[in-house]
Amino acid sequence: MNVIDFIEDHQSAYLEELKDFLRIPSVSTKDEHKSDIARAASWLAERLRSAGIKNVEIVPTPNHPVVYGESVRLANRPTILLYGHYDVQPAEPLDLWTSPPFDPTVRDGNLYARGSADDKGQLHLHLKALEALYETEGELPINVKVVIEGEEEIGSKNLWAFVAENRHKLIADALVLSDTSMLAPGVPSITYGLRGLNYYQVEVTGPAQDLHSGVFGGAVPNPITILSRAIARLHDQNFRVTVPHFYDDVTKLSRSERKAIASLPWKEGAFRKIVGSRDLCGEKGFSVLERIWCRPTLELNGIWGGYTGKGEKTVIPSKAYAKISTRLVPHQDPKKIARLVEGHMRRLLPKSVMCKFDVLSAGKPWLADYRDEIFRMAITSLETGFGKKAVFIREGGSIPFVAQMHSLLKIPCVLLGFGLPDENAHAPNEHLSVENYFGGLRSVALFYKELGQNGARL
Amino acid sequence: MNVIDFIEDHQSAYLEELKDFLRIPSVSTKDEHKSDIARAASWLAERLRSAGIKNVEIVPTPNHPVVYGESVRLANRPTILLYGHYDVQPAEPLDLWTSPPFDPTVRDGNLYARGSADDKGQLHLHLKALEALYETEGELPINVKVVIEGEEEIGSKNLWAFVAENRHKLIADALVLSDTSMLAPGVPSITYGLRGLNYYQVEVTGPAQDLHSGVFGGAVPNPITILSRAIARLHDQNFRVTVPHFYDDVTKLSRSERKAIASLPWKEGAFRKIVGSRDLCGEKGFSVLERIWCRPTLELNGIWGGYTGKGEKTVIPSKAYAKISTRLVPHQDPKKIARLVEGHMRRLLPKSVMCKFDVLSAGKPWLADYRDEIFRMAITSLETGFGKKAVFIREGGSIPFVAQMHSLLKIPCVLLGFGLPDENAHAPNEHLSVENYFGGLRSVALFYKELGQNGARL
Repeated sequence: MNVIDFIEDHQSAYLEELKDFLRIPSVSTKDEHKSDIARAASWLAERLRSAGIKNVEIVPTPNHPVVYGESVRLANRPTILLYGHYDVQPAEPLDLWTSPPFDPTVRDGNLYARGSADDKGQLHLHLKALEALYETEGELPINVKVVIEGEEEIGSKNLWAFVAENRHKLIADALVLSDTSMLAPGVPSITYGLRGLNYYQVEVTGPAQDLHSGVFGGAVPNPITILSRAIARLHDQNFRVTVPHFYDDVTKLSRSERKAIASLPWKEGAFRKIVGSRDLCGEKGFSVLERIWCRPTLELNGIWGGYTGKGEKTVIPSKAYAKISTRLVPHQDPKKIARLVEGHMRRLLPKSVMCKFDVLSAGKPWLADYRDEIFRMAITSLETGFGKKAVFIREGGSIPFVAQMHSLLKIPCVLLGFGLPDENAHAPNEHLSVENYFGGLRSVALFYKELGQNGARL
Repeated sequence: MNVIDFIEDHQSAYLEELKDFLRIPSVSTKDEHKSDIARAASWLAERLRSAGIKNVEIVPTPNHPVVYGESVRLANRPTILLYGHYDVQPAEPLDLWTSPPFDPTVRDGNLYARGSADDKGQLHLHLKALEALYETEGELPINVKVVIEGEEEIGSKNLWAFVAENRHKLIADALVLSDTSMLAPGVPSITYGLRGLNYYQVEVTGPAQDLHSGVFGGAVPNPITILSRAIARLHDQNFRVTVPHFYDDVTKLSRSERKAIASLPWKEGAFRKIVGSRDLCGEKGFSVLERIWCRPTLELNGIWGGYTGKGEKTVIPSKAYAKISTRLVPHQDPKKIARLVEGHMRRLLPKSVMCKFDVLSAGKPWLADYRDEIFRMAITSLETGFGKKAVFIREGGSIPFVAQMHSLLKIPCVLLGFGLPDENAHAPNEHLSVENYFGGLRSVALFYKELGQNGARL
C-alpha cells in the first residue's frame, strides 16, 4: 500500500493518539509536573518502538529525562537525527482558555491544547510518518536517531551534557525537526534561520523590608520606580537596544536577502490582526519581518513587585523583579551579550538599591545555506505533501539545539514548520491546524522516502 | 481607687483581651474575611458596653459595618468623638512573619500581630482607659461618642455615607483618636498634620493577547516596557513629581515650622536603620522629615505583568498593571490631583497601547492649630502618663476621617500616637511596644479625666 493512502486510512487513529499525548501536562518549569514529565517520556518511548525504532532509552538527567531512540542500522542509507521536545509552556492564565489546556478539543478544523503546536503535535507527525513507512515498507527507508528532550521551554540545560556524552552516537547526515511555523496558511515553509535566546532575571532591593508608603513615602528608594527607570532606558526612541556594543557583531543584512524577504507572500495586515494592538512598533529602518527574523531584540517578559491583589495596599515594597530576554542573530555571542546586558543594567541602577542579576539561559543563533541539495528534496516533498508552493523563511524564535548541533556536527539542519503564527504557542488557546498536521505528516513521509532513495549521495 | 493604680492591677487582663481582638483576621480588602469583619464588630460592641458606653449599634453599610456607641449624656461635661478602625492590612507575604500574623505573641517587650499597632492596639487602649474610669468613678468623666469603622485600609468609602446620615448625632467638642506614631521611643507625640491619600490603578494593554516573544519580539508594543517608560517619567531627576500643576496649591512651609521640625529629637540614623536601604533619596531642597510630613509624593505601590513564576516563559504579555498613590498636603484638592495624574499618565503613554485608569480612593490632607487649649491638656497628660517630655509632630500617613470630620464639624482633632515608626504597620512582623500600650492607656485615662474636670470651657 502506498504510504500516502495508508496515512489517509489512519487519520482518525493518529489524531486520537495525539490527543492522548496532549492530555499529559508535561510543564517543564514547574516541579509539581515531574511525574507528568516522566509519563510523557514513557509514552514517547512506546511510540518510537511502534515506528520501527527498536533501541529506545529514557536517559535520566539532573532534571527531566531525554528520550533517545535508534533504528537498526541499514547500509547505504542516509542517517537522520530527528529532534523534538515533549515539554510544554505553563498554561496560565487558565481563565483565558476556551477549552481546558490539557483536554484536547477540535473546533473549526483546529486542535486546541497546550503543546498542540509547540511541539507535541509537530513531533508526533514525524513518529507517525516513520510508522507509516515502517508499516507499508516493512522497514524504515532511512536510518533514524531520535533525541526528544523535556527542557526546551526552560533552556535545554541538561541536553548539552547528554549531547557531549553521546557525541559520537549522534553522528548523522542531517538534523531534521519540526518546531517552527509556516509563513502563512497555505504556504508550507522551511526555516533557514533562528534567533538565539538569552533569558535573565533581575531583582532590585530598595528598603530592607516593605514599608508604609505614608510614613516613609517621599524619602526612600522605591524599587518599582527605580527598576522602571532602568527598563525605560534599555531602548532608545528608535527602539534600538541601548546596551553598549550590543550590535557590534551583528551581521549586516544583504541586499539580496532583504529583497527575498520583501517578496514573500506575507501580509502585514494579517500580522497586525494576530497582534491586535492599536499600532506596531520596532527598530527604525527595518521592516516587520526583518525586525522579528533578522534583528536582535530585548523584551520584558515579566515584572512584579509590591501589592498586586485587589484593592489598595499602601506599601513601598522592599523588592521589585523583572524577567528580560534578548533574541540574538548571527554573529552575536550569547555569553558576551549576557555580560553586556548585566553590566548595562547595573550601571542604570542608582547606588541606593542592590541588584541581583541572573542569567537563566543563553543560546546561540543559527543560519543555514539553503542551497544545499537536502533542502531541494525537502521543498519538493512539502510541495507534494501540501499541493502548494513552498518557501524559505527565517524565524524569530529560538531552538538552542539547532545552533548547538550545527556547530558540533557540521551537518545541515532541516526545519520543517507546520505551526502557524496565530496558533498561540506560549499563550492561552494554543492550537494546531488539523489540515497542516496531516499536510506535514504526508510531506515528512515523502521526504524520508526520497532521502532513502536518493539521499545516499548527501 | 485611683485610675492609674486600677490600670496597674489590670495590665495582664488588658493584654490578654487585646490578643483576643488581634486573633480576628479582619482584613478589609479581601472578600473571604467578611465573617471575620463581622466578628470583630460584635467583639467591639461588647467591649464598648463594658466601658460604660451603653448605646451601641452595629450599623451595616454596603461593605463593612460601622460600630457606633454613645454614653448616657451627662450635663456640663464636654463630649468627645472617639474614632478608630477595626480592619487591618493584608498580612502577605506570610513567609516573612516570625510568628503567625493572627497568633499574637509577645517577644522582647513587643506584641507581634497584624493590627497590633495599626489600629487595634491603639484603639483598644482607649476602650480600656474609659472602662478603668467607669469602674473607678462609677460613671464616665466625659460624654463619649464612638465611631469605629472597618474600611480604613481600603479608603473608608462607606464611612462618608454614615457620617452624612448621622451628622447631627456626631456633634462633639473634639475628635480624639490614636492611629499615628510617636516620633521615637521615649518621645510621646501629638500629631497636628496628616497627608491626604489618592490611590490609583493603571492597566496598559499592548497586544490583544499574550504573544511568543521569539515570534513577535521586536515588532510589537510591549506593555511592560511602555508602562515602565511612563513610570520613569513621573519624577524628574530631583525626585519632584512631574505631573503638571501638581504643586500649584501646596502651602509653602514657614521658616518657623521648618525650624521647629529641625529641632525635634529625631535622628536620621535611626530612620536609615529602619529603612535599611543603601541610601535614602527624595525631593531636592527638603529634609527627610519635611519630605515625609510636609511634601506631596507619588509612590508606586505595586506593579505586575507577564510571567512572574519560577524559571522562564518567553512571552510578551497583553497587559501590564501598576498601583500608584499620591500623598497630598494642604491645600491640594484630591479630586483635582486625581484628574491631573490621570491626564499626565495618559499623555505619557504612546498611541500603540490602551490605558484604563481607575481612582480607587481620594482623601484630603489635614493640618491643626496646636495652640488650642485642648492640645495643652493632651500634652500634659502624655507627659504624666509616660513620665517623659512630649512633642508636636506631623505624619506622612493619611487618616481620611480626620480631614473629613475637621471640615464637617469644625472641631479640634487630637491625635495621640502610640505606635513607633519601626513597628511595621502594613509590613510583615507588625508589632506594638507593650510599654507604649500602657503609657498610652495611662495618658488617655488622665486626658479624659482632665477633660471632665476642666474641659467644660472648651
